[in-house]
Amino acid sequence: MAMTNYLLNHPRKLVSLPFFSEQYDAAKSSISEDLDIVDQIFQSQGIGKLETVAGAAGGVKYIPLFSNKNSEQFILELCNQLEDPERILPGGYLYMSDLLGDPELIRNVGKIFATAFADKEIDYIVTVATKGIPLAYATANVLNVPVIIVRRDPKVTEGSTVSINYVSGSSRKIQTMVLSKRSLPEGANVCIIDDFMKAGGTITGMQSLLDEFNANVQGIGVLAEAEDEEEERVVDDYVSLIKIQDVDIKAQKIEAIKGNYFPL
Amino acid sequence: MAMTNYLLNHPRKLVSLPFFSEQYDAAKSSISEDLDIVDQIFQSQGIGKLETVAGAAGGVKYIPLFSNKNSEQFILELCNQLEDPERILPGGYLYMSDLLGDPELIRNVGKIFATAFADKEIDYIVTVATKGIPLAYATANVLNVPVIIVRRDPKVTEGSTVSINYVSGSSRKIQTMVLSKRSLPEGANVCIIDDFMKAGGTITGMQSLLDEFNANVQGIGVLAEAEDEEEERVVDDYVSLIKIQDVDIKAQKIEAIKGNYFPL
Repeated sequence: MAMTNYLLNHPRKLVSLPFFSEQYDAAKSSISEDLDIVDQIFQSQGIGKLETVAGAAGGVKYIPLFSNKNSEQFILELCNQLEDPERILPGGYLYMSDLLGDPELIRNVGKIFATAFADKEIDYIVTVATKGIPLAYATANVLNVPVIIVRRDPKVTEGSTVSINYVSGSSRKIQTMVLSKRSLPEGANVCIIDDFMKAGGTITGMQSLLDEFNANVQGIGVLAEAEDEEEERVVDDYVSLIKIQDVDIKAQKIEAIKGNYFPL
Repeated sequence: MAMTNYLLNHPRKLVSLPFFSEQYDAAKSSISEDLDIVDQIFQSQGIGKLETVAGAAGGVKYIPLFSNKNSEQFILELCNQLEDPERILPGGYLYMSDLLGDPELIRNVGKIFATAFADKEIDYIVTVATKGIPLAYATANVLNVPVIIVRRDPKVTEGSTVSINYVSGSSRKIQTMVLSKRSLPEGANVCIIDDFMKAGGTITGMQSLLDEFNANVQGIGVLAEAEDEEEERVVDDYVSLIKIQDVDIKAQKIEAIKGNYFPL
């Protein structure tokens, strides 16, 4: 049980068997047997699996996974909550801050993104202030990698920064994004996480900024996507968990369906 | 072991014994015995304890706690990292974004704050964009309460907002803070979490804004505090984990010590 706890708290970290047998004062063979049971329980609970790495430098890694069944059920419930007409704001925007403030919801979204990108090589999660931040950390918690936050405004505490100007898809306004120079090494593998995407101008802006660091964007995940009536989408390879199909202000009706991550 | 996992994932949630015996197909008496063992392990690992609530509506709650020994050791290591002269920025500011991007570090800080405020009645964690956000979520994860984010600028996706103007302690500039009207019910118990405090103008600003919602500020936690040379501190009842004692630009020396949370 102590081992389960250790593994749950150190996702994707390779732990050697000698470490466990020393820590818990048990023979390596009994540790092995216990790990088999842990693996079975993780799998039957749909929360992940243990991966064994053979050899002298080997050990065991807990790979957190959120089963497809659990994910889809969770997202469908979230769609249901989003369809509450009270959420409609002037301009057809949706109020979502209450949902984004719920730590359990955020943890679940992080687990789904981490599952979606489990087979990619990812060194950093990148997001843009402000609403994407909790989702980025929730994903990073599971993938066990650091988070880098792109800002809209330079701040003295960031040191020297690289900045780009870009045109936001929906408003056609010129906007700025900055990233601290020392935050990201050259050539890193990154995954972009954000809360919402319309035409995708913000994501494209982040991609251009990341180009300045020669970063490889290995994946893009957005919690919700919606179509932009005036602008065609400029990002095509992304994972979305929710699709806001329609917001009808007059009829006070919202239609939210599962995103492209799930099979139709 | 499945029970351990469930409890770890549902901090501060009251779980009835019948729930466990149904879920894991075991007699209530053996569940009770197992819970005793879980409690012992949690306590010996310094990660918390189980609290039993008697009666028909009773059950068991996992209260995550980060032992004082673990906390102090962790914070002293963090002070050590902060004292790296490479962190000094123009104006005597310190670069901390790399540390604030490390999910394990953030999780630990959240556990320490949650322990510091474990005996307070807290309904919401409140923070201000941007750097306090991950710390707020990490604390909220452990206390199992929602997060509310005060912004510097109103956004259409927030709906109608309440805003206040305040004078920032160190720069003497008038600044604005806004909070979505529907984000916080009247009279809620809140805990303010932020990354850094100098004179405390930002915290005072948040307190004034929270007054508009008749909120009761039950606690204030900052990761690091530093003295402001020009301005006296305007906040006095707070918990700090780190104190930046001195940043000497000329000698390229930083002195960081443990904050007021720890006994001298």
